[in-house]
Amino acid sequence: MPDSSDSTVVTAALIIIGNEILSGRTEDANLTPVARGLGRVGVRLAEVRVVADDVAVIAETVNQCRAAHDYVFTCGGIGPTHDDVTAAALAQAFGVAVTRHEEAARRLMLHYGEDRLNESRLSMAHMPEGAELIDNPVSQAPGFRMANVFVMAGVPRIMEAMLDGVLPILSGGAKVLSRTLSAELPESELAAELARIQARYGETEIGSYPYFRQGCFGTSIVLRGTDAHMLERAVEEVGAAMRKLGVEPLEITAEESE
Amino acid sequence: MPDSSDSTVVTAALIIIGNEILSGRTEDANLTPVARGLGRVGVRLAEVRVVADDVAVIAETVNQCRAAHDYVFTCGGIGPTHDDVTAAALAQAFGVAVTRHEEAARRLMLHYGEDRLNESRLSMAHMPEGAELIDNPVSQAPGFRMANVFVMAGVPRIMEAMLDGVLPILSGGAKVLSRTLSAELPESELAAELARIQARYGETEIGSYPYFRQGCFGTSIVLRGTDAHMLERAVEEVGAAMRKLGVEPLEITAEESE
Repeated sequence: MPDSSDSTVVTAALIIIGNEILSGRTEDANLTPVARGLGRVGVRLAEVRVVADDVAVIAETVNQCRAAHDYVFTCGGIGPTHDDVTAAALAQAFGVAVTRHEEAARRLMLHYGEDRLNESRLSMAHMPEGAELIDNPVSQAPGFRMANVFVMAGVPRIMEAMLDGVLPILSGGAKVLSRTLSAELPESELAAELARIQARYGETEIGSYPYFRQGCFGTSIVLRGTDAHMLERAVEEVGAAMRKLGVEPLEITAEESE
Repeated sequence: MPDSSDSTVVTAALIIIGNEILSGRTEDANLTPVARGLGRVGVRLAEVRVVADDVAVIAETVNQCRAAHDYVFTCGGIGPTHDDVTAAALAQAFGVAVTRHEEAARRLMLHYGEDRLNESRLSMAHMPEGAELIDNPVSQAPGFRMANVFVMAGVPRIMEAMLDGVLPILSGGAKVLSRTLSAELPESELAAELARIQARYGETEIGSYPYFRQGCFGTSIVLRGTDAHMLERAVEEVGAAMRKLGVEPLEITAEESE
């Protein structure tokens, strides 16, 4: 585990909002891009919650997460229908009213034109008082920010476009570097030595992931940490442990292993 | 929203354990099968948490979830390596010691044989005192149950096999029936009428999901509830709303829409 007293550790929570995920109708596609995007700017995704389209539940979850983490991101529930309750929930969480955001309304008007901007579409400009807009380059209807909470769309293509705009303004901590060594060994044979290495490298997080591929059992060891020198030493020790068991480790590059 | 005072509503939480999900390295593949499996036996997945491989965090999350829901399921962290800490976390959550489960050890011995059953593999028989085994027909190393908490593997193939064994012993509530109507209409045109229908059918959960498919914008309306008669009436009203806008609704069958 990384040392949580390290002042350079910046954490985030992701709240995925939607009955359709909880019923199993729709597979979530937002967790992984949010996790990877945050990682690139030195923010660690520390927890994810998936919650129903319920104002009280969302408000309570937002308040728990914004107290516990530097940043909170939500996905989902900002469309034009009655089951889109994220704005109401954020207003409840922050104890403010929902009001029409004039700049959001202006963008919707530009996008839809006066004749196609019905009441339902205009409801996408209803936001908690004090909301700052998050641009939506895909379909205009903006997300919004309240303090450290970033409210984004649930449609993955739109969520990713909003996230791209948000990432550059976050204050990340030290970037987590990641290395992966694989070997055709069952993880139980490496386990004892890995535990000893982990005990010596407390600041490096060492994860063990077994796989079965092309008829062979193997294990990928993922080492993550912010100190490149310590990480390199831990990688060398894991590699040596694999060689001691008679198997040459294969280093997987970041793109392959991500 | 379904009426939460309805005594036939049985809810569950799923806790997905693993740094590899939070870092974006591995895509979760367990949420959807758990959601669908629970749905088939009348248990509603009400929330999901994704948490790190951290004993204190897992223990606290388990205690929050087991107080709030009829059932709790966990996936991940029960393998043979140092980062598999779910058993220790459950022991902490329940205030009991970790001890060797003799029947679990016997199964591991049968599976691996004496010469291949090293200390690391045997550690998979270390469970909280009082744990009842969950069968693992894939690779033998069992999951376990403590009160209303079911601890399963993280590898999807093994998790699904464990879940198949657990589902028949759950006491589900009224089964949630689901119907889906689709129409090539933007959801904002349906929104006002949908909100009126939802207001009249409080016990039926009406979700609106826009899609873009083969060059056409459309909306799927998913209606879910336990009362078949009320559900049918709500479906008829949604269909009528679509026809009023000049579009014939298409009913999507459960297998297509699931």
